[in-house]
Amino acid sequence: MDDLGKGLEEAAGRVDRLMTVLLADGRRPPRLMEAMRHAFFAGGKRMRPFLVLESARLFGIEGEAPLHVAAALEAIHCYSLVHDDLPTMDDDDMRRGKPTVHRAYDEATAILAGDGLLTLAFAILSSQGTGIPAGRRGKLTNRLAIAAGIDGMVGGQMLDLGAEGRFRASGKPLKLGEKAVRRLQALKTGALIEFAVTSGGILAPRAERAEKQALTVYGRELGLAFQIRDDLLDVEGEAAMVGKAVAKDAEKGKATLVSLLGIEGARRELDRATENGRAAIAAAFGPRAARLIALLDFNRARQH
Amino acid sequence: MDDLGKGLEEAAGRVDRLMTVLLADGRRPPRLMEAMRHAFFAGGKRMRPFLVLESARLFGIEGEAPLHVAAALEAIHCYSLVHDDLPTMDDDDMRRGKPTVHRAYDEATAILAGDGLLTLAFAILSSQGTGIPAGRRGKLTNRLAIAAGIDGMVGGQMLDLGAEGRFRASGKPLKLGEKAVRRLQALKTGALIEFAVTSGGILAPRAERAEKQALTVYGRELGLAFQIRDDLLDVEGEAAMVGKAVAKDAEKGKATLVSLLGIEGARRELDRATENGRAAIAAAFGPRAARLIALLDFNRARQH
Repeated sequence: MDDLGKGLEEAAGRVDRLMTVLLADGRRPPRLMEAMRHAFFAGGKRMRPFLVLESARLFGIEGEAPLHVAAALEAIHCYSLVHDDLPTMDDDDMRRGKPTVHRAYDEATAILAGDGLLTLAFAILSSQGTGIPAGRRGKLTNRLAIAAGIDGMVGGQMLDLGAEGRFRASGKPLKLGEKAVRRLQALKTGALIEFAVTSGGILAPRAERAEKQALTVYGRELGLAFQIRDDLLDVEGEAAMVGKAVAKDAEKGKATLVSLLGIEGARRELDRATENGRAAIAAAFGPRAARLIALLDFNRARQH
Repeated sequence: MDDLGKGLEEAAGRVDRLMTVLLADGRRPPRLMEAMRHAFFAGGKRMRPFLVLESARLFGIEGEAPLHVAAALEAIHCYSLVHDDLPTMDDDDMRRGKPTVHRAYDEATAILAGDGLLTLAFAILSSQGTGIPAGRRGKLTNRLAIAAGIDGMVGGQMLDLGAEGRFRASGKPLKLGEKAVRRLQALKTGALIEFAVTSGGILAPRAERAEKQALTVYGRELGLAFQIRDDLLDVEGEAAMVGKAVAKDAEKGKATLVSLLGIEGARRELDRATENGRAAIAAAFGPRAARLIALLDFNRARQH
């Protein structure tokens, strides 16, 4: 296994062990806890926890503090999947080959499991014994709440539903331009990734301004690069399967950077984001950033 | 207007002014923000904000710090109403004479508006410029997250759905005993009230142990007294309207302290809780607790 693979596996193992304890039944309603574990232990790659641990490691910080930040962030990521999958939202029955929470349980349980995971994230970040210095807790909590809320992920999901034409009498998708698509994606998926990558700099007592800026650039470019790669895979996957270049999003008439820039244009933008993210982080951290750079390269080469 | 009325009105005015600013459109999706304002400015009495401000005042603390705690708590209370009203939960079309959020907008918007309010609560508590001392923020955040989550309100809502028989093949309500009913209510509605009442003692740098304990007792008894009064009104209201003592909850076969203890037994328990709450807080705070005591008396005398 390469070094990136080791990093991802280590992050997944540590976060999963912590959350196994935190999501234990105790005196809590067993069905709710089962549903929350179903949501959390759903086979994700734990990229966000990896990014938190890795960004902290750039500043020599390991141990419990970044682990708790990573767990809180992943709880929020998982809650958002549960709510997004609901029939009245994206209406997905399956996720990673398993039934979604509302299919495995029921809608009411899925809503509460999501609410529970979201609330738990802030209980984790604010609890004592995490090793997060008291003076850093408020800032981390605030950044995470803003990234996850109406100025971040929740706002982005609302824009996404709107872009599908959900709130129009005609039901027809909006014709978003490039700027609007970039903003939607920066909010919906970019904000949490940016939080992950910048959290190490918040934990570090002596992070320099230039280092924090490099992490911000890296986080934005990584989020963008992931989204473009997903959109390209969507188009290429459909092309491979049905023999023509029609994607799921394109079928819905939904604007993506691929539909707006074309396949070649999107590939160029993916290359640009990858190289820009690499340059920023290499300049600030040198060889210590090897795993974060490997993640950019891994993403660019991702296949189904 | 009496002193309690003034206190409630002041709390409502201050919290509403703050939240008017925090829930402004800005660059956020307008439909989402409208739905969140619909949820927040729905004509509630703001009892929880009042309790936060009043408990802080017992320690001579006024100003921005308790106001932000009050706003965060009320945001969580309002989110819980939005999600509880959803078709798949309690399926309510109206609340306080206005359509519920999913009726005025749609279900997806209601879910996101709830998620947005819940997340905003933690952004408010953790933001700078609230006047909450940095050393108290973590504890307040942690207490609020625990009171609102799986060990508090979310857990209680799940128990409540379970008690209605929602997850049984037969669909028949569970026959809960007194202990289980008390626990369900302590989680579902008691935990946030207890948080409200104890938050003043967390904000105060020199709150004494006995004072904090008195607030905890008061909070528990107040939460219980409110629930019993609601249950009594449910029975008495139906009796007045349809000429027989059949309550909404009783119709569903749902156990309450009224159904378990009988009307007279429930009234005695309401008196006991009222007097116990009064005694605890009068002993610790004397005449400064007059408004909190007035709230207990107001509750005992509540009519439709």
